[in-house]
Amino acid sequence: DVKDCIIAYFRRSLQQGGGALSGKRALVTAGPTHEPMDPVRYIANRSSGQQGYAIANALADLGAEVTLISGPTTLRKPAGVAVQDCETALEMQALVAAMPVQDVAVCTAAVADWRPAQIVGQKIKKQSRDDVPAPLELVPNPDILADISAPSPSRPQLVIGFAAETENVEAHARAKRLRKGCDWIVANDVGENSDVMGGRENQITLITEQASEQWPRLDKNDVAQRLAALISERLSGKIDL
Amino acid sequence: DVKDCIIAYFRRSLQQGGGALSGKRALVTAGPTHEPMDPVRYIANRSSGQQGYAIANALADLGAEVTLISGPTTLRKPAGVAVQDCETALEMQALVAAMPVQDVAVCTAAVADWRPAQIVGQKIKKQSRDDVPAPLELVPNPDILADISAPSPSRPQLVIGFAAETENVEAHARAKRLRKGCDWIVANDVGENSDVMGGRENQITLITEQASEQWPRLDKNDVAQRLAALISERLSGKIDL
Repeated sequence: DVKDCIIAYFRRSLQQGGGALSGKRALVTAGPTHEPMDPVRYIANRSSGQQGYAIANALADLGAEVTLISGPTTLRKPAGVAVQDCETALEMQALVAAMPVQDVAVCTAAVADWRPAQIVGQKIKKQSRDDVPAPLELVPNPDILADISAPSPSRPQLVIGFAAETENVEAHARAKRLRKGCDWIVANDVGENSDVMGGRENQITLITEQASEQWPRLDKNDVAQRLAALISERLSGKIDL
Repeated sequence: DVKDCIIAYFRRSLQQGGGALSGKRALVTAGPTHEPMDPVRYIANRSSGQQGYAIANALADLGAEVTLISGPTTLRKPAGVAVQDCETALEMQALVAAMPVQDVAVCTAAVADWRPAQIVGQKIKKQSRDDVPAPLELVPNPDILADISAPSPSRPQLVIGFAAETENVEAHARAKRLRKGCDWIVANDVGENSDVMGGRENQITLITEQASEQWPRLDKNDVAQRLAALISERLSGKIDL
């Protein structure tokens, strides 16, 4: 619509100069992945994609050239952002691998850890009331965050992962940062009473090599703006987190 | 909004008289069910709920008092219809069981045949890159359509099931009608190239005890109106399908 055209126009001109992230390329992954079992069934997760879309918007507002690689969501596409849609972890991996070198990668996508070992070509039929199919074998999906984080000439200067945890949030997130090789981890508590998954607010702990800072409970747009500001300070060398 | 209020007002007054289904109670189930594996992961299916929501609207437009029991969808709630939301097959079963006696039940919901045998209380953690969890054991869900169809004093006069098939559509649907004990089956082909799941159109074969009629490819709203008209003729004894 008209509003989107205007936003896209200003974001494009910001990319040329004047924004804190002008001249920088940012990749954001967002949303869940859907991992099919057969033509109608799939394994999903409760990621709504809201936090990732908000970060794509916040980075674009600072003048970054943003690509958003998104799993299935019902969210409005951010204006002035190149959106690439996908469904499965394998599809997301292929899109990420095809990207040119980025300055920063923010991996918010809740990529399924596993997928069904086989995708059955026809809908699995229930034969009788108590009929049960064989237990569903799972195989590991590619680890997109670890791949992006691995040392290489094309590694983004700053790689940020997300960790959705239901218990021992900080300890799990610290371990994840080391295991994945990313620079920062944005950890959030998605425990039963948090209302974070699908909700409008987020409770963040930002974990870096040197520091761990807990943010107040904030609207996901405010989390995004705060993170985008930190990204810009880090890329410009103003902070050394 | 205002439009919904006006629609709801006219639908409520139609319920008092003047509509082909005035004085009749209709239950519609719609949408997928989501079957959790842990706090963040679940098994889903590609039902969008569109066809069921369209049928709820069409029945309400004929003056029926409609209850729509809906799994997770992103659709707009029909005006003047009592909507009850649920997530899992077990929750849907409980809502259906609590309903007063209905004249017609239209079971469009794509109720998951199976659910994970256990719901793990904390997010299942991936321990290492190649770590794979034990195969996922599945158990049968309640068969809501068969339960509604079973002979009993509270059985609706007319019970209609839906069958989403990817092959041998008519043969599978005929077998399903007998197995479930419902009166009609609305069969549709959701095969790879049909674009039916999540799409705006539907290709229907209506299967009754005596007959099988293939409908042209129609907008889901037109399918709904045609079906609502047939339901009204059957409940008033004008046709004996």
